Amino acid sequence: MYKTIICAIENSDEGELVLSKANQLAQLTQAKLIVTHVIPYTLLPNDYQKELKESALPAIEAKVATFGISIKNVKIKFGKAYEQICLLAEAKNADLIILGTHSKKGINALIGSTANAVANYAHCDVSLVKV
Amino acid sequence: MYKTIICAIENSDEGELVLSKANQLAQLTQAKLIVTHVIPYTLLPNDYQKELKESALPAIEAKVATFGISIKNVKIKFGKAYEQICLLAEAKNADLIILGTHSKKGINALIGSTANAVANYAHCDVSLVKV
Repeated sequence: MYKTIICAIENSDEGELVLSKANQLAQLTQAKLIVTHVIPYTLLPNDYQKELKESALPAIEAKVATFGISIKNVKIKFGKAYEQICLLAEAKNADLIILGTHSKKGINALIGSTANAVANYAHCDVSLVKV
Repeated sequence: MYKTIICAIENSDEGELVLSKANQLAQLTQAKLIVTHVIPYTLLPNDYQKELKESALPAIEAKVATFGISIKNVKIKFGKAYEQICLLAEAKNADLIILGTHSKKGINALIGSTANAVANYAHCDVSLVKV
């Protein structure tokens, strides 16, 4: 039912929960799983971007390794999270994006702004995992 | 990975697409699938509610029958769609709600208001199917 799933994760335990669900779903549907992590900086000197990427990579790589996901399928991006996630989904012709969301309860209920923007702008299905 | 999935559908061809995906996912995850359709009226005489329900049921029943889903697992509700969907999910201890969403593109991007409210208020994961 899905061919390509994009899983956007944060560098946290919650990212691991989201990744675990995405991985199960990818295995069940025999979909290709691409994991992305977006570093929210754009206007930085290239050297500094490289440094940030290199400092983020080990933790993300460790997470994906837990699930036996190839490091080739991990994409570290820079910029606005929702834009980078949606652009990657389009570039890879993904049919599902999975990401975590913190939800606040009550009158001021708001799902995470990234989750909300992805749900709005993605051209494919979006699955929001409560973290 | 999921034990109980709630699929909220409209009485339309798009509802069928959402139901088809929910059904595939329920089968893959061996989850129980509960289908709901919410009629957006509350302050109506009971007789009229009954009439509305009876007029909506055949089309919904025909849809679920296509997928071999038991009519026992169809719940017709009255009220605000997002409230009824979230209440049902809690009552059934669901771990996933699947519903369709129309998304508008551009500056005024807005996912469907029901989808948005469900994503905000649900206590479980929410999967939005682009229709």
